[in-house]
Amino acid sequence: MKIAVSGKGGVGKTTLSATLSKLFADEGRKVIAIDADPDTNLAAALGIKDADKITPLVEFKELIRERTELSPDRKVFKLNPTVSDLPEKYSVVSNGIRLMTLGTIKRGGSGCACPEGVMLKALLNHLILQRDEVVIIDMEAGIEHLGRASTRAVTALIVVVEPGKRSIQTAFQVKKLAGDLGIKTIYAVGNKVMNDTHREFLKNALGDIPLLGMISYSNKLIELDLKGEAAFSNNEQLLSEVSEIIAQLEECIK
Amino acid sequence: MKIAVSGKGGVGKTTLSATLSKLFADEGRKVIAIDADPDTNLAAALGIKDADKITPLVEFKELIRERTELSPDRKVFKLNPTVSDLPEKYSVVSNGIRLMTLGTIKRGGSGCACPEGVMLKALLNHLILQRDEVVIIDMEAGIEHLGRASTRAVTALIVVVEPGKRSIQTAFQVKKLAGDLGIKTIYAVGNKVMNDTHREFLKNALGDIPLLGMISYSNKLIELDLKGEAAFSNNEQLLSEVSEIIAQLEECIK
Repeated sequence: MKIAVSGKGGVGKTTLSATLSKLFADEGRKVIAIDADPDTNLAAALGIKDADKITPLVEFKELIRERTELSPDRKVFKLNPTVSDLPEKYSVVSNGIRLMTLGTIKRGGSGCACPEGVMLKALLNHLILQRDEVVIIDMEAGIEHLGRASTRAVTALIVVVEPGKRSIQTAFQVKKLAGDLGIKTIYAVGNKVMNDTHREFLKNALGDIPLLGMISYSNKLIELDLKGEAAFSNNEQLLSEVSEIIAQLEECIK
Repeated sequence: MKIAVSGKGGVGKTTLSATLSKLFADEGRKVIAIDADPDTNLAAALGIKDADKITPLVEFKELIRERTELSPDRKVFKLNPTVSDLPEKYSVVSNGIRLMTLGTIKRGGSGCACPEGVMLKALLNHLILQRDEVVIIDMEAGIEHLGRASTRAVTALIVVVEPGKRSIQTAFQVKKLAGDLGIKTIYAVGNKVMNDTHREFLKNALGDIPLLGMISYSNKLIELDLKGEAAFSNNEQLLSEVSEIIAQLEECIK
């Protein structure tokens, strides 16, 4: 089970990623959760203390230099660095979930093919193609770190949407990007749903993107975040709604 | 008055940008509103009909080719294209607000200095340095299109935050980026505030970033978005709270 979660900023990708990870871990499965969105904090949503103090993978400069055999002028580096040992070495384990925080690639004048980007793409390829664990990847809408090599092995790309036109537009942009990469299994999950008007809106707006389920709006999430607790901590409604989403997903991919 | 609005995805940058534009226009001032965040839709928040059908500036390929004198292999282009006529030609005017939608620069292998990026930076420089109008720029957290040349002329960089740790972290990241660019006038605005716990959290969490004011949570915004109406349409509370924020800003920059 390799799930990538995407969508507009602020829709709740991280809440869904954390809760999916928790539920798969509760089933006794090994889970690797990947924070690949610089604008979120999956560690905090998993309830990991001192989540702000985790050093993201891209900030291990010496590691990146060594693995990519980077030349001193940063112009030459190999495109297939060894990464298979990184999940064990550069991760935090909490409640049976192994978390890796990838960090932000600072875009400089050197173009998109920078050693950090090559490392991340190689790592995601490895996780998607060569690992037995459940892998949950919390991604930006750009899904740019997914390489063509790995996309056929992605079980599902889930786009989170909320009642609001902009997140729907982003869902269709993600669908297009995913199609270009060869990902065919794209699904949506509605979040922050308050009433039947919202439910109807989401059902109608998503067109041919199958809707796996919906998560109710709850201001409990804000309080849990402010207290530094996991998004799913004593949050039975969230856990039950995401359980149903997993059941629906398993039905769809059978 | 040149205001850049930034912050984490989903915190309400666009709601604030639209309402600031509306209130300055209501004072009889000329306003140019700039949608510089590919992940939002300022046109929709301003209540412009068929907001999805506006062609963003970066998609006018021939214009960009001509103005940057782009070579056929896309490798050579000038860094100071003429842009002073673009606000009049490539904008939509609605209720006294002139809106420009900049669009998404697709990052290819050509690096950061691409002709589209050069055009956007030149345009923002022009708007900030050479225009008499009030300019409101709805930006990504990356604020990457603000050039060093124009930053001293930015009246205020407002970072929108919500009750939640991640948006506060983004605020400090934006403050750091802004400092590196030479912007000293950075302020915060709290959004989606529900109760006194949220108020206290925001006041305490922002450290030395001055808080101009707060906007209350309201699910009216979702309903207005779904109906295709402006964020401030019949929304007296929002208008009144943002009026106070403007008054506070004017006090701070006196």
